[in-house]
Amino acid sequence: MTRISLKKNEDRRIKAGHPWVFSNEIGRIEGAPEPGVACELFDVSGTYIGTGYHNPHSLISVRLLSRKQDDIDSVGFFEQRIAAALAHRRSLYPRMETFRLIYGESDFLPGLVVDKYGDYLSLQLLSAGMDRRRGLILEALQRLLSPKGIIARNDVAVRTMEGMTEEVELLQGTIPDAVLMQENGLTFEVDLRNGQKTGGFLDQKENHLLLQAISKDTDVLDCFCYSGSWAAHAGFFGARSVLGLDISERAVALAGRNAALNGLSDRVSFEECDAFDRLRSLKLEGRSFGVVVMDPPAFVKNRKNLAEATKGYITINRRALELLEPGGYLISCSCSYHMGREPFREMLATAARQAKREVRLVTARSQAPDHPVLLNFPESEYLKCLVLQVV
Amino acid sequence: MTRISLKKNEDRRIKAGHPWVFSNEIGRIEGAPEPGVACELFDVSGTYIGTGYHNPHSLISVRLLSRKQDDIDSVGFFEQRIAAALAHRRSLYPRMETFRLIYGESDFLPGLVVDKYGDYLSLQLLSAGMDRRRGLILEALQRLLSPKGIIARNDVAVRTMEGMTEEVELLQGTIPDAVLMQENGLTFEVDLRNGQKTGGFLDQKENHLLLQAISKDTDVLDCFCYSGSWAAHAGFFGARSVLGLDISERAVALAGRNAALNGLSDRVSFEECDAFDRLRSLKLEGRSFGVVVMDPPAFVKNRKNLAEATKGYITINRRALELLEPGGYLISCSCSYHMGREPFREMLATAARQAKREVRLVTARSQAPDHPVLLNFPESEYLKCLVLQVV
Repeated sequence: MTRISLKKNEDRRIKAGHPWVFSNEIGRIEGAPEPGVACELFDVSGTYIGTGYHNPHSLISVRLLSRKQDDIDSVGFFEQRIAAALAHRRSLYPRMETFRLIYGESDFLPGLVVDKYGDYLSLQLLSAGMDRRRGLILEALQRLLSPKGIIARNDVAVRTMEGMTEEVELLQGTIPDAVLMQENGLTFEVDLRNGQKTGGFLDQKENHLLLQAISKDTDVLDCFCYSGSWAAHAGFFGARSVLGLDISERAVALAGRNAALNGLSDRVSFEECDAFDRLRSLKLEGRSFGVVVMDPPAFVKNRKNLAEATKGYITINRRALELLEPGGYLISCSCSYHMGREPFREMLATAARQAKREVRLVTARSQAPDHPVLLNFPESEYLKCLVLQVV
Repeated sequence: MTRISLKKNEDRRIKAGHPWVFSNEIGRIEGAPEPGVACELFDVSGTYIGTGYHNPHSLISVRLLSRKQDDIDSVGFFEQRIAAALAHRRSLYPRMETFRLIYGESDFLPGLVVDKYGDYLSLQLLSAGMDRRRGLILEALQRLLSPKGIIARNDVAVRTMEGMTEEVELLQGTIPDAVLMQENGLTFEVDLRNGQKTGGFLDQKENHLLLQAISKDTDVLDCFCYSGSWAAHAGFFGARSVLGLDISERAVALAGRNAALNGLSDRVSFEECDAFDRLRSLKLEGRSFGVVVMDPPAFVKNRKNLAEATKGYITINRRALELLEPGGYLISCSCSYHMGREPFREMLATAARQAKREVRLVTARSQAPDHPVLLNFPESEYLKCLVLQVV
């Protein structure tokens, strides 16, 4: 097996549980520098640290899968890892069939994401190491879950950083055009083939419940509504009216179908528009809302555009705050890892100041627990979901 | 009225909503420099910013109570402020009679804390400005709540920084030796005269519910248990056994009475001991727990002892993690403002590394919403309550 040795003093973070080795931390490589090949990692004194895979073309040169000398090229290894992840989800959600089954590093399978939508699996192979082992992964998933279909949503830019192509592939069985999933007693249609990410967003399910205490008899605005999850929840929890905005025609159609599926079309409606512009025109029209949900797609793609993206966040949140009635609530989210928790709060404080609104922080939440966060792998936490109330 | 003008460029934070003016930010003072006297604050160009009170002996020279030209020396002003705070609590807790009624700056009454325990009020006058207005405050409280008794728990060190003495005073009516309060369906005895702070800790009530999902049929250890709230909740939620530790004889006796009050004495017990030492001896005895609660008193009294206090946090959390069964949970808290959210996480990551345990962050919470956090007054948030699970 390929043997990789760290430089002196580069082992601390990794020995503490962090699974990544950057290329500049490596002292010596013995063996084939082939993308995705299994390797053993050692510190400078030759002490074994862990087993993982190597990609000479990636900035993240090694990702560790194990701290024992496991055979990561066996079906048994993947079966054991996936079974442990499944057991964790079953304990979290004893009555649910839709959840994130594998969340990469947090489930000790770096570079692999698997979302389970009932009988169907939608996965992402995000590294050369995982792409190389797709056969083992499919076999393990088959043994544990016998899904009716598995689709690979490998149409993600991060694969190019690993020297791979972006593509969508049906890996096994069939995938219907529309799959139905349950969340908090509501039913949603997801499009595993063409929807965003793996089809749906499973990371906000507990946060959607935050609408329960604040939606009743109010007018709710859902910006960047995508498939209409927030909007449908608001309607379900008794909102007088819900308006969802999205720039995508496909999203607005899907959101409309989801409102209808839950018998909410009388009070939940959607507009195809640019949320930035529509927020401004709603203000000019003198509209106001009791709740505004601001859950935009990731503005911050990398560290470089953080400053520019922050301006975008401030603008939309300021406009949202300006539309709120006294006592009204803003639910503001960011799914960008590069927008940290503290900068996100500071951004909202700035938006509140610009909007001349005094705001209370009601609660600060993160992603659903089927997207586990490892304390020694801070990169595993990306979602911020804050509820603010205008005083 | 005393007129205070800021130096150039010192108005930004304050205009953004922050209620404090530090002595070095002040350019000019016109009028009597008497502790607690009402004042109006202006920026360098003479524009009115707000109304508050001044203390020439304090580092926090001015605290603002209003952004309008309110008369802060009237009962009506206090009545309006307290009524707004009360309305907020009634909306938060429609069926509760015990809550923090006034949380200082967050309720636009800097320096005043009022906790309502049913018919009794326990308050703290933490600044010269509030101490000076105690008559107005009592009158307003009387009009709004007609309490059977009001006690001032002014035995807090922060008063010396305002040039005042530390003392406990019965301000009105009578205060029984034991007052009963309800929390999450449990009953607790509080000692308003001699207990810590205002008698009880009302800031963890929602966090106590985090035990519900994880306590059943497990052995629970509650370190620094004080009045036994965490311990009683764990017993109530079905723990097999609960052991509470506290160095105070009085606390252990109170905790025992609280377990008895809830019919939990068969499974909830307490030991008078030093938690640091006992954690070590429990390990030597080979004991293990499914849940450990680590909710110590504020180790960090100021910025200066942060490094030393952090070592203390690491030690107790490491020892707690070492006592956990696989899959077990640590609930770790800090009520020190100076221990920030991010450093607290880093401290726990260090403790986990030292304990050689891989841990998931299950959830990160803060203080109860009757201790509101203002986004533009970060000092209003002090509590960290994290749930970690050993993977």
